[in-house]
Amino acid sequence: MFEAKLDQGSLLKKLVDAIKELCTEVNWEVSSQGLSMQAMDSSHVCLVALTLLKEGFQHYRCDRPLTLGINLANLAKILKCAGNDDAITMKADDNGDTLTLMFESEKQDRISDFDLKLMSIEVEQLGIPDQEYSAEAQIPSSEYQRIVRDLASIGDTVIISATKEGIKFATTGDIGTANVTLRHASTSDRPEGQTHVTLHEPVAQTYALRYLNNFAKASPLSTSVKVSLSKDIPIVVEYRISDVGFIKYYLAPKIDEEEENEGGDENQ
Amino acid sequence: MFEAKLDQGSLLKKLVDAIKELCTEVNWEVSSQGLSMQAMDSSHVCLVALTLLKEGFQHYRCDRPLTLGINLANLAKILKCAGNDDAITMKADDNGDTLTLMFESEKQDRISDFDLKLMSIEVEQLGIPDQEYSAEAQIPSSEYQRIVRDLASIGDTVIISATKEGIKFATTGDIGTANVTLRHASTSDRPEGQTHVTLHEPVAQTYALRYLNNFAKASPLSTSVKVSLSKDIPIVVEYRISDVGFIKYYLAPKIDEEEENEGGDENQ
Amino acid sequence: MFEAKLDQGSLLKKLVDAIKELCTEVNWEVSSQGLSMQAMDSSHVCLVALTLLKEGFQHYRCDRPLTLGINLANLAKILKCAGNDDAITMKADDNGDTLTLMFESEKQDRISDFDLKLMSIEVEQLGIPDQEYSAEAQIPSSEYQRIVRDLASIGDTVIISATKEGIKFATTGDIGTANVTLRHASTSDRPEGQTHVTLHEPVAQTYALRYLNNFAKASPLSTSVKVSLSKDIPIVVEYRISDVGFIKYYLAPKIDEEEENEGGDENQ
Repeated sequence: MFEAKLDQGSLLKKLVDAIKELCTEVNWEVSSQGLSMQAMDSSHVCLVALTLLKEGFQHYRCDRPLTLGINLANLAKILKCAGNDDAITMKADDNGDTLTLMFESEKQDRISDFDLKLMSIEVEQLGIPDQEYSAEAQIPSSEYQRIVRDLASIGDTVIISATKEGIKFATTGDIGTANVTLRHASTSDRPEGQTHVTLHEPVAQTYALRYLNNFAKASPLSTSVKVSLSKDIPIVVEYRISDVGFIKYYLAPKIDEEEENEGGDENQ
Repeated sequence: MFEAKLDQGSLLKKLVDAIKELCTEVNWEVSSQGLSMQAMDSSHVCLVALTLLKEGFQHYRCDRPLTLGINLANLAKILKCAGNDDAITMKADDNGDTLTLMFESEKQDRISDFDLKLMSIEVEQLGIPDQEYSAEAQIPSSEYQRIVRDLASIGDTVIISATKEGIKFATTGDIGTANVTLRHASTSDRPEGQTHVTLHEPVAQTYALRYLNNFAKASPLSTSVKVSLSKDIPIVVEYRISDVGFIKYYLAPKIDEEEENEGGDENQ
Repeated sequence: MFEAKLDQGSLLKKLVDAIKELCTEVNWEVSSQGLSMQAMDSSHVCLVALTLLKEGFQHYRCDRPLTLGINLANLAKILKCAGNDDAITMKADDNGDTLTLMFESEKQDRISDFDLKLMSIEVEQLGIPDQEYSAEAQIPSSEYQRIVRDLASIGDTVIISATKEGIKFATTGDIGTANVTLRHASTSDRPEGQTHVTLHEPVAQTYALRYLNNFAKASPLSTSVKVSLSKDIPIVVEYRISDVGFIKYYLAPKIDEEEENEGGDENQ
């Protein structure tokens, strides 16, 4: 039996909103340690990894590991029925064919429960190697969201370069070119509203803006986002959910652009 | 001659918004007592009854009873031109072919007048019998609005059950099931923000969510709504407009669900 | 070389929003005096004239006159990437094939630069004669915006009449008629929130509402708008941009309505 309660149920709504456009059906793995998920997006281009530690829940119990096969659009429909201040409790029996969600209003005057049908989803688990990165930039999530949205209105791909001066995003499109630079803040106070670049060596890589833009749906989860870059390996865009866990997005760089056909499928 | 002035003209806007999606053309009956309307919705499934007492108007004069045949979409178009703080005066001659609406801004620096063409509409007047109900629930209108909207995203029909513990709304759809319970508040202070159930005998009936959802358009008119239930007779959803009158919606229950075709026309 | 900086970059966004739906491609003329533009709308019915004086810029330099051929939709796309509190610097080389826009956030922690490709646009310059008007009305821009929007929902053309009592807008449509009168304020205090009519002789002229409605897109630029009227010559709708310049819209009246075909092309 699995049972877990979040007093701040809006967190679960934000989490599902952060992944439901990339992935339609996912397996949530629940164990005595917490809840985790790893899924390729539906076009098999990027990977989403989610971890919620049991310590992040106000109540958590999981007698034996369970795989919960979830249609995220349906879960989102149900979570839309939760008030922003509702506590949310998730429950599943060991047969794992239903996820029960219980919403309680603060004043306990409204109680809702929903049974979501679960499904059996075939997925291959991918190993994600631990990695040292050439550059890691801590960016206000509102700035990240805005830059990738703005640049996506102009071009299809972005060159992200990290130097000790800061982190630069550059794109080119039909109407012209665009460069946005976030300057590294040398002061260490107010770190959340500023950009901090930790640099081992300068790096510049090209990525599809469409995906980077999609990752920004996680912005409501955290005031800042960490972008990790190394040559020829996937970028990691990570949102920490305070005291609870994190969500990480991985996207491979576009290598050797000259050989690519223009209008290749990832850009469309 | 008919002439009636509402200092709070926004009330008239809210009233028309509360009925214009259900009914396209209606007769407003004006008499020395006030203004009233009774109309079936365009699919002839539910009934809307409106009463505005003459005492609710800042000025009211009606020399002899008149029937004003109104296209509600056109009236709504005109009312959209009124500011929220405008006073609204309605006027009609005894021949009843035009309704004049005059809007005055608080500072009297803008004066608008609109002539709306009236029409002749054939309707049969239905008698609504006075009725004792098994259960009456006073619910915050925001809660009612939210519950029927949420459940309509999951299923087509709702079973509403009233017990002494409270009032429960239950639905079933493709993705699973949903139950929302509003608890009866035993305290009698702050009655408007709480749910109060007056129960003669427990009752449970099934209704089409689509219509209950439409009735919630009257929410801006009142902070609470009264839901009256009895076995095998129409539910009444009533919004009181303080000092002025009320709007009531009637909807017949779905009886003997087993015999119904799935996907029957009222659910679509 | 041309270089001009506006500390309040949002002004440029508002300006482009005020003309981009009327004109798709325009020439901006920059000289040592400032920036100006004059363009017919794409259906060749109305004329837009824009003047920004060099004194309105925080920094302004223009070595020799240049014509910048701009696609306004593309410029708007780039300006959407500027924060509302960003300073905006525009730059162009003497060959005039690119306009560089630089956005700086207040805290200087984000710097963006965009290169917009310019184009060669053939236009005939029209002389606009200086004119005395029979009536000039200073109107709160929010009132102008609202009246033309409201009346456009009812009819296609509006008769604007100026008398010493005020300025009246009248239209007729399928559903009825509408008249809105703004009263001339005799007091001279709080002039911006009030309507003031300066009258040489009473005048009443008919105009296409669709265009008057479009002119209201300039409302964010100024709290008041000046409407100038004379018999048989174009109406002028003018928004002053404090300390910087103005935008003026010219629209010819509809003369001899009886001879016009109903549903003529300007009304559609």
